[in-house]
Amino acid sequence: MSDSSRRQFLAGAATLSAAAAVGTAQAGQICSDLPPVVHKVYFWLKNPTSTEDRDQLIAGLKTLGAISTVQGIHVGVPASTEQRDVVDNSYQVSELLLFANAADQDAYQIDPIHLKFVEQCSHLWSKVVVYDSIAV
Amino acid sequence: MSDSSRRQFLAGAATLSAAAAVGTAQAGQICSDLPPVVHKVYFWLKNPTSTEDRDQLIAGLKTLGAISTVQGIHVGVPASTEQRDVVDNSYQVSELLLFANAADQDAYQIDPIHLKFVEQCSHLWSKVVVYDSIAV
Repeated sequence: MSDSSRRQFLAGAATLSAAAAVGTAQAGQICSDLPPVVHKVYFWLKNPTSTEDRDQLIAGLKTLGAISTVQGIHVGVPASTEQRDVVDNSYQVSELLLFANAADQDAYQIDPIHLKFVEQCSHLWSKVVVYDSIAV
Repeated sequence: MSDSSRRQFLAGAATLSAAAAVGTAQAGQICSDLPPVVHKVYFWLKNPTSTEDRDQLIAGLKTLGAISTVQGIHVGVPASTEQRDVVDNSYQVSELLLFANAADQDAYQIDPIHLKFVEQCSHLWSKVVVYDSIAV
């Protein structure tokens, strides 16, 4: 079983088991301990109002989930939470990837799938900010 | 069963089932579809070199996992990933919370546990930046 298939299988088994246990759990709503390393990226598009550019970037980011060291992925846009002065919602697209350790995140950076994403999508953004955090 | 107990039970059931399925899965390493709303916060301490202040903030942040609408939590510090000019590792502490929807994140903001955290810890930081994202 490939790493990708195994992850999908694991996800399915975990979701089904937990849903059966209580009968009310929703798929995709179960996330116990997160992997320790979180790679968080925010993108500002060169053309901030272009839904075409935004969607191309989103599609590109979603390919990153196939990289073997990626243990979880969330591709998003600013959420409609309450507006507060500490909230930065000026970016157009966000990416969140989960890793077992910092070395796996470093390996992800040079994975061919990631390099292809950068090659095909980096012309879309004018600014990118990255925060890498490890659990304490 | 309380919401908190149910979440712990769900987490345990999911982990055990998936681990049994392949025999090699590690606890805490399984995270299938993430809940759609991710609340990401970065803190810069007034006293950036004070491990006492940092640890007080970390302890305060960890209390937020008990809030009923929180579906996942990660409290971290900058990871030792490769240094690149797009990486901001100037913050001291990070927080990541997962929610089912934006309304649950709004409810979290006024939860007594969150208000107590702000009351007890807000003197520790000089700057905070928040990014709220919803899956696409």
